[in-house]
Amino acid sequence: MKVHTLEIEIAGNSKRYPVLIGQNLLDQPKVWEPYIKGREVVVITHALLKSFYGSLLGQGLAAYSVHWIVIPEGEHHKTLGTIQNIIDTLLQKAFDRTVTLIAFGGGVIGDMVGFTASCYLRGVGYIQVPTTLLAQVDAALGGKTGVDHPLGKNMIGAFYHPESVLADITTLATLPDRHYRAGFSEVVKYGLIRDRSFFEWCGEHTEALLKKEPTSLIEAVKRSCQHKIQIVRSDERERGARVLLNLGHTFAHAIEAETQYKEWLHGEAVSIGLVMAARYSNGLGYLGEKEVSDIRNLLKNMGLPIDLPRNLTLQRLGDFMVRDKKAVDGQVRFILLKAIGEAFVLKQSLGAFLDKIQMG
Amino acid sequence: MKVHTLEIEIAGNSKRYPVLIGQNLLDQPKVWEPYIKGREVVVITHALLKSFYGSLLGQGLAAYSVHWIVIPEGEHHKTLGTIQNIIDTLLQKAFDRTVTLIAFGGGVIGDMVGFTASCYLRGVGYIQVPTTLLAQVDAALGGKTGVDHPLGKNMIGAFYHPESVLADITTLATLPDRHYRAGFSEVVKYGLIRDRSFFEWCGEHTEALLKKEPTSLIEAVKRSCQHKIQIVRSDERERGARVLLNLGHTFAHAIEAETQYKEWLHGEAVSIGLVMAARYSNGLGYLGEKEVSDIRNLLKNMGLPIDLPRNLTLQRLGDFMVRDKKAVDGQVRFILLKAIGEAFVLKQSLGAFLDKIQMG
Repeated sequence: MKVHTLEIEIAGNSKRYPVLIGQNLLDQPKVWEPYIKGREVVVITHALLKSFYGSLLGQGLAAYSVHWIVIPEGEHHKTLGTIQNIIDTLLQKAFDRTVTLIAFGGGVIGDMVGFTASCYLRGVGYIQVPTTLLAQVDAALGGKTGVDHPLGKNMIGAFYHPESVLADITTLATLPDRHYRAGFSEVVKYGLIRDRSFFEWCGEHTEALLKKEPTSLIEAVKRSCQHKIQIVRSDERERGARVLLNLGHTFAHAIEAETQYKEWLHGEAVSIGLVMAARYSNGLGYLGEKEVSDIRNLLKNMGLPIDLPRNLTLQRLGDFMVRDKKAVDGQVRFILLKAIGEAFVLKQSLGAFLDKIQMG
Repeated sequence: MKVHTLEIEIAGNSKRYPVLIGQNLLDQPKVWEPYIKGREVVVITHALLKSFYGSLLGQGLAAYSVHWIVIPEGEHHKTLGTIQNIIDTLLQKAFDRTVTLIAFGGGVIGDMVGFTASCYLRGVGYIQVPTTLLAQVDAALGGKTGVDHPLGKNMIGAFYHPESVLADITTLATLPDRHYRAGFSEVVKYGLIRDRSFFEWCGEHTEALLKKEPTSLIEAVKRSCQHKIQIVRSDERERGARVLLNLGHTFAHAIEAETQYKEWLHGEAVSIGLVMAARYSNGLGYLGEKEVSDIRNLLKNMGLPIDLPRNLTLQRLGDFMVRDKKAVDGQVRFILLKAIGEAFVLKQSLGAFLDKIQMG
């Protein structure tokens, strides 16, 4: 068993914690024990994940008293009401501050368990165990936790870091194919923002990645985590460099909202958003045609959508973005590309956007 | 206008912020402006406080767009439901991360607004403006925020520090007399824990303090805040020295719970608890009779209760303490006194407690 360990350190915060990456880790006590301080552990997950991995987790956590809280799947359960239900259960069982919560699932589980840990008895320890590719390379890192509100996503939450993050690629075996592929838009995003050679590496290893070949997959997760860690380290609260992580996301958010979050998975919307960012960068003269087409091809080869549906006009997306909180004085903050591997921020009006974006 | 400024700094946290203490401060822009970053300010308070101080606050905050959220009084409103109502209002008005919340009220308001600030959009700035003596000398300092749950007090919350604390003794003018006096149990507590000369000073200035004589009152608030700051600085999360602040509180909590939080104000229960801690310290041979009687007399002269009601037996209080989360393996963690000005922690069984406490 080989474990790749990255360290996360946050400026202005004394907390340090590791990200462990590898395969077949769940049943190994040594990946858990350094990060659990008490005797009581509460695994919060979905029913299906419990049925797949419950016995492996049981072996890894054999030294503890392990409790399970099973919550329903789906972003529409990511509410303060679900948090309250979890807290009710924790209090009924009278867990004290030495309890450790384990977020075993995708981004929704991670966000909710992290927020619960942040406010239960004013803060208890938790471990992020992301079981989707998207959560392993993005959502589980960086300490953002929270829930949605009818008036917006992630409106209520906390910055609260776990004791450790355990990314075991074995859990991706049971991830539906479409969800697996959707995670690659975030992987490609890191290459686009700051690492051209990683972007190229993704192109060379597309087939291996789609086949879940362990060495390549671990390398992709590890390099993605390294990028996220480097960005978050200097800017936990998204006041500077962290905003670049929104590459493709301003568009994706508009696409998801205008399709009522039904048509695309988040990662798929991000893929389309990345192409839109590339096209707009091209329209403004920053990025060449060849690079736009390299980006399109890589995402397409990864089985991701790259085009807007016909009924979704740029005007509609633009209107949404202006209404959205990211618009200040009618200006939208775009994350764009000077080149593959070099993202930057540009404030532009909706008119400039509609005028300059080059759609195929 | 004289403002006394103390600085709060927390180990392992880059946040620093001031506590401003004085009188007639509310209408002065300069006590507000350094701590408000955006244009929007939301004052969260009770109806009566708004009617008393609304226009003074309006003058002090004239440079901002000021909004009010009025919430009902009483600890039984200190729930996640109230937090959700406040957040609904904030989101309906679409306040972004530059908003500043102002907690204008006693400990309940401070706890709730602090928790709201901690989780609205994953954290916005807030200012603590405690309007009760108890909140000025204790609750508003130290970053503890949160709400109650049917299964216990302060079960859900966060450690989240304000941009500043503004303690204006002018607001104590409208505080009901009984509530005003109740605050002195926390003042006396600091003397008992770590400052014999402050305890003696309180004895010499009892009359002036009860008459709300400004110089003495400001001195009492300032010295109390200094003590709290020094303790919290080294131990934000109550893993060490901060536990001494619970002097009298283990008893007080049992007294409040066993009387359904109806008979005594929190500060009154603490007063009785301080006397119980003194008596138990005496029973164990740590504290002399003379000191126990000095403590009783000071609290009594401040108009505070010092005796248990007849129907509340030590056995009942002891049983509660064992059931309470502070009991580990049947041992209760008592905060006791070696002398006036020197508190310490001692774990004892319920039997030892019932055997040794000397009640008059």
